[in-house]
Amino acid sequence: MQPPSLTVKAFSHHYPVWVGSGLLAQIGDAIRETSPGASSVMVITDENVNRYYGDDVKEHLERSGYSFKTIVVPAGESSKSISSYEQVLTAMLQAGLDRKSLVIALGGGVVGDLAGFAAATYMRGIPFLQVPTTLLAHDSSVGGKTGINHPLGKNMIGAFHAPAGVLFDSDVFNTLTDAEWRSGFAEVIKHGFIRDPEFLSSLVNEFPKRENLTGSQVNQMLEYSISIKASIVEEDEREQGIRAYLNFGHTLGHAVEGNVGYGEVTHGEAVVIGMRFAILLGDKLGMQPADETAHIFDFLDNQGYQLSIPDTCTQSELLKLMRRDKKSTSQKLNFVLLNRIGDPELREVDEETVCQILDEEGVRK
Amino acid sequence: MQPPSLTVKAFSHHYPVWVGSGLLAQIGDAIRETSPGASSVMVITDENVNRYYGDDVKEHLERSGYSFKTIVVPAGESSKSISSYEQVLTAMLQAGLDRKSLVIALGGGVVGDLAGFAAATYMRGIPFLQVPTTLLAHDSSVGGKTGINHPLGKNMIGAFHAPAGVLFDSDVFNTLTDAEWRSGFAEVIKHGFIRDPEFLSSLVNEFPKRENLTGSQVNQMLEYSISIKASIVEEDEREQGIRAYLNFGHTLGHAVEGNVGYGEVTHGEAVVIGMRFAILLGDKLGMQPADETAHIFDFLDNQGYQLSIPDTCTQSELLKLMRRDKKSTSQKLNFVLLNRIGDPELREVDEETVCQILDEEGVRK
Repeated sequence: MQPPSLTVKAFSHHYPVWVGSGLLAQIGDAIRETSPGASSVMVITDENVNRYYGDDVKEHLERSGYSFKTIVVPAGESSKSISSYEQVLTAMLQAGLDRKSLVIALGGGVVGDLAGFAAATYMRGIPFLQVPTTLLAHDSSVGGKTGINHPLGKNMIGAFHAPAGVLFDSDVFNTLTDAEWRSGFAEVIKHGFIRDPEFLSSLVNEFPKRENLTGSQVNQMLEYSISIKASIVEEDEREQGIRAYLNFGHTLGHAVEGNVGYGEVTHGEAVVIGMRFAILLGDKLGMQPADETAHIFDFLDNQGYQLSIPDTCTQSELLKLMRRDKKSTSQKLNFVLLNRIGDPELREVDEETVCQILDEEGVRK
Repeated sequence: MQPPSLTVKAFSHHYPVWVGSGLLAQIGDAIRETSPGASSVMVITDENVNRYYGDDVKEHLERSGYSFKTIVVPAGESSKSISSYEQVLTAMLQAGLDRKSLVIALGGGVVGDLAGFAAATYMRGIPFLQVPTTLLAHDSSVGGKTGINHPLGKNMIGAFHAPAGVLFDSDVFNTLTDAEWRSGFAEVIKHGFIRDPEFLSSLVNEFPKRENLTGSQVNQMLEYSISIKASIVEEDEREQGIRAYLNFGHTLGHAVEGNVGYGEVTHGEAVVIGMRFAILLGDKLGMQPADETAHIFDFLDNQGYQLSIPDTCTQSELLKLMRRDKKSTSQKLNFVLLNRIGDPELREVDEETVCQILDEEGVRK
């Protein structure tokens, strides 16, 4: 197997991240390299991904001599439920998986989070390999956050469980819709916002539209974005401090997703709305003036993003959802705001200020 | 607060274990010392424990100025179900617990495992304080194993999550039945078997019956037994090697519990049956001769333990349950056997040999 694009130094172990074209065919080598003693393999995937890549992966695993089973869950956020989680664990037990078995999370963020949490808690933790199939999952597949949703809040149940490795075949992007692409690209932009003004400005100034991107441009962007994520989680894996910066745009973003209903707006598209809101909030609080970043949102507008809070959202619902954010402690609202690009700060903000901007943005009470 | 009886060096952090009479009254100090920033407290307990100690704990917490809520689950193994787990998480979310909140596990092993797993996975992990109320829980409260049951197997879902501390008030033993006492004392004996011939022999030769024990004898025994457990988990927290020795007597013990139905025989009583079985198995395989330990089982017989496998068990059911043991890999049976007292070894044993002994013990096919 080729050397990894980068290695992530997690608390429990270091793990390789491979990024490149055609890597799915090397899944057997990736297993051998990351989990040499794997006694059996369970592929967890969703219906859509299974349709596109199920047969390929099956063939590659068979060729490599691994005995494996596959669990296919419905596509979409609904599979991050407690009942899906239970079904996955049941299937793992029925398949006779033991402590040396390996879980393969083949899919986007939903599959990665669900399969990762199942692996984290099956017999108190077995290894899993992340095989992301969306651009968005370049973010979630690195860093070891796994989890499911509770009816009272997104990602409220979970564990930190670093993967054995991440195998990212960038050819999978060929099957992404534009909305899915935008969802993932938002996190690339976010990484620039919180850590690297130069990377952000190169994206804004030199980045072609999706249809004109070359494969090597995509791989470079991916590797760079992952390396930013990795550097942050290496410093603060358990989110005691700076890892919270990765939630830039997510306090309102999650609330928007919850308010309009998951799946009605993609995660990344909601995060763009949330990042713009955080910029406005920072401006109001005397941090970086909003006009200094206006050109970035023009660029995002051009890339097809919606920038304003959807009409179906209400202030009361958004506030209720934001109060339940995991970053909030003692029921105050917490936002990641920017002193300037590359210099974020976690701030408690009073609800009055938040409502002022919601008013200015024309969001109904 | 007095200095702890011992400190356990877990991977994630070191934590104190206090053992002694009257410690429940110091629960506020224990919180302050182990979780200085605790924003709010959730007590998780069961109906029986709540009846005995709920008011006391409530009073002590109020006196210490902590705001808290209490979740009371039904007593018994049935509370280690996925649905209880979900109910606990729902109550925690409804109570508005945040990442700085503290869970208190007030009860025996079931409460500790359930509350610990809820704490381990609530918002990807919040701290919890173990406040054991049974002798058996002196074992389970130390070492960070948490988890719940799946219909297909005991403790199949769980996480390693070291507690913030363990507060063990030995006065709680006053409310234990003899069967509950025996259940816990079995793990004390087990610690002697796998690690300390001298400790074991002092128990067998000098240990009075329960009714004649002084408080200081109980505390000494507890501290010593916990220190053995702690020394093993410090060496191998994630059970990659020697921690498995703690499962001496548990391969068959768990199967007996499963076969007769949880609650029909206590955990420790089943472990004594399992330890005797492991001794017979070791004898058959040319390890320590069984007659060298016969006096220990005479002592246990005298203490009121049953030594033989219950009549309601069948070979086929026991084998099925043992194949599902977490220690088993690639579906072989694994047992902890003794080369001699204090020198255990994890061995794969073929089913034929196991069945031979089951035959000799008169267990139905």
